[in-house]
Amino acid sequence: MQSINPNLQFQRRRTPSVSEYVEGILQGNRVMLSQAITLIESTKVAHQNLAQQIIEQCLPHAGNSVRIGITGTPGVGKSTFIEALGMHITERAHQVAVLAIDPSSQMSRGSILGDKTRMLHLSANEKAFIRPSPAGDSLGGVARKTRESIVLCEAAGFNTIIVETVGVGQSETAVHSMTDFFLLLLLPGAGDELQGIKRGIVEMADLIAVNKADGDREKMAKQAKAFYNNALHLLPMKESRWTPQALTCSALSGLGVSDIWQLINDYQQFTKENQFFYNNRKNQSRYWLTESIESALHDMFYKDPSVSAAFSSIEKAVLEGQISSFRGAEALIQIFRDKKLEH
Amino acid sequence: MQSINPNLQFQRRRTPSVSEYVEGILQGNRVMLSQAITLIESTKVAHQNLAQQIIEQCLPHAGNSVRIGITGTPGVGKSTFIEALGMHITERAHQVAVLAIDPSSQMSRGSILGDKTRMLHLSANEKAFIRPSPAGDSLGGVARKTRESIVLCEAAGFNTIIVETVGVGQSETAVHSMTDFFLLLLLPGAGDELQGIKRGIVEMADLIAVNKADGDREKMAKQAKAFYNNALHLLPMKESRWTPQALTCSALSGLGVSDIWQLINDYQQFTKENQFFYNNRKNQSRYWLTESIESALHDMFYKDPSVSAAFSSIEKAVLEGQISSFRGAEALIQIFRDKKLEH
Repeated sequence: MQSINPNLQFQRRRTPSVSEYVEGILQGNRVMLSQAITLIESTKVAHQNLAQQIIEQCLPHAGNSVRIGITGTPGVGKSTFIEALGMHITERAHQVAVLAIDPSSQMSRGSILGDKTRMLHLSANEKAFIRPSPAGDSLGGVARKTRESIVLCEAAGFNTIIVETVGVGQSETAVHSMTDFFLLLLLPGAGDELQGIKRGIVEMADLIAVNKADGDREKMAKQAKAFYNNALHLLPMKESRWTPQALTCSALSGLGVSDIWQLINDYQQFTKENQFFYNNRKNQSRYWLTESIESALHDMFYKDPSVSAAFSSIEKAVLEGQISSFRGAEALIQIFRDKKLEH
Repeated sequence: MQSINPNLQFQRRRTPSVSEYVEGILQGNRVMLSQAITLIESTKVAHQNLAQQIIEQCLPHAGNSVRIGITGTPGVGKSTFIEALGMHITERAHQVAVLAIDPSSQMSRGSILGDKTRMLHLSANEKAFIRPSPAGDSLGGVARKTRESIVLCEAAGFNTIIVETVGVGQSETAVHSMTDFFLLLLLPGAGDELQGIKRGIVEMADLIAVNKADGDREKMAKQAKAFYNNALHLLPMKESRWTPQALTCSALSGLGVSDIWQLINDYQQFTKENQFFYNNRKNQSRYWLTESIESALHDMFYKDPSVSAAFSSIEKAVLEGQISSFRGAEALIQIFRDKKLEH
C-alpha cells in the first residue's frame, strides 16, 4: 500500500464532475465548453452519460440566441463569408459560435472548418467560438451531436449560432430543422447553378446571397440577384409569412454583409411578433423527437439477428414476384415480434 | 339431428375456395375478380387470409401489363379523359382495368370513380373493368389494397392498368410508386395552376397533358403546353433517361388521345430497351417492402400501451426544454424495449 506514489493522484488528470462542467460552461469557460463537446462527440458510454447530464443541466440556460443555417456548394466562399459575417457580428457586441454538419467528412474528420486556417481572424476573436464538424457514422448521429453542441454554446453565452453545411445530400434538411434562419449562398451566373443545388433547398431559404459580387463579377451578380428574386416569387408563401429575398454580397470586400445582418434581425423581429419563431422551435423539438424514435426503431429492427438472417431470402422472394411486398413485410415483422416475445 | 333441414346447406351461399377464385380470375371471370377484390378490401381476418392466398397464386400470372398513373386536380376532367383513353385502348384489342387511390374518400366511400356514371361508355365496355376507390383508414392501407388489386387484374388478363388519383396530398407518390408511366393532367392557363399542384408532382411526370384544348381554350392550351415544355427542360434528367414532354388534348373531342397512347407505347419500348422498366418494378417492390415494414414498426411503437401512456408527458418535457429530443426518444424506446422483453 505504502509503495504507491502519493503524488500519482495529482499527476493523473482528474475528469471534472458534471457540476464543474456546467459551472464552467455557464461562466463562458471555453476550455470547459470544448471538453464537454468532446464528450458529446465521444463514442464511449461513460462519456455519453456524462454528456447527457451536462446537456440536461444546460438546457434551462439555452435557447436565447438566433440560430443561422448557412449552406452553399463548395467554392461559393462559405468560410470567407462566415468569417466576414462573424467579424461584423462580434463588433456589435454579439458572441458567435460556428458549428458544422458535414456527414461526408466522416473519413476525413472535419473537412469543413477543418483547421480554422480559413477563418484566421474569427478564430483569433475572443467573442467567437469555432468548432469543426464532428465525425459520425450517419447524418442522424452527426446532426444529434451538432444540435446538442448548440445547447452548450447557448448556455455558455453565445447568442448567435451559425451552423454551416455543404449544399449536397440531406444535410441541409437537418440544418434547416435546427436553425431559425436559413441562408443560401450562391455564385453569380443566373440560373445555371440552380441545377447543381437540390430543388428543395431554394424553398427552405429565407435569404439567397449571391456572393463574390466584386470586380468583373458585379454585373453578373446583379443579374443573378434579379433572377433569384423572380424565382422566389414563384414559390408558395412560407409558413413563417416571411418573404425571402435575394441580395448580392462580397465576403472578400465586406459589401452587403451589414445588409444581411440587418435582414436577419428584421426576420427575428417579424417572426417573434407573429410567434412563428417560438412555434417553429417547438416543432423542431418535436421533429427531432420523432426522427430519433424512427431511427432507433429502424436500428432495432434491421440489427435484430433473426430479422437480418431472414431478410435477404424474403427480399429475394419479393423481388422475384413469389410473394407480395406486403406479405414479405408481414413475415419479417412477425419474426421481429416473436423474437422480442421469446426473450 | 333429423330435424335439421337438409336443404339448408344448399340455401346458404357457399364461399368459393382459393383455387376456385384463382381459376375464375385466370379465366377472366370478372365476377370472381370483383369478389376477390372485395376480399382484399375487407377488414375481416378470414377474408384477409383468403385474399392473401389468392394473391400469392395470382402473382406468377401478374406483371404482363403497362401500369399508368394519372393525376390532376379536381375539375381537370380526369374521368372524361380516362374514358376517352380507355375507349381508344380497348379499340386496339387491349383490356383495360381502371383503379383508384383516394384516401380523402374514406368517409364518402368511393368519391372518385364512385358511381361509374362519369364513365358511361367504358363501364359498359366488355374489355374494361372499373373499380371505385377502396375505403381505408390510411393512405398506406388504401395503397396496399390498390397494389394488390393490380395483381389480380393482371392475372385476369388486363394488360393496361390505369390508376387514378387526385392531385392533392401524398397519394401521387403512392401512385407513382406502383405505376410504370406517370401522366399529369393540367388545365389551360400557363403557369398559374402550377401553384395548385405540389412541386414534386411535375418532377414525377413522364407526360403533361393540357386538357380541354377545345373551342376558345385552344390557344391558351397551346401557350400552356409551350410553358410546360420549357419548365420540363429545367428539371434534372430522369433516372429512366426518358425526356418528359407536354401535349395538348381534349378528352371531349378525342383530340390528342391517340398521340398520348403512342407516347405511352414509345415510353414502354424505350424503357424496356434500357432495362429501366424492369429495374423500376423491382425497386417498387423493394420500396413497398420497406414502406410496409416502417409502417408496421410505427404502429407497433405508437400503439404500445406503455409507450402511449408515457408519450405525452415525455413529449411535453421535450417541448418545454426540460429534456432534449434525443433523451426523450431514448426514454420512450427504452419503455418499448422493456415492454417487449417482459412479455
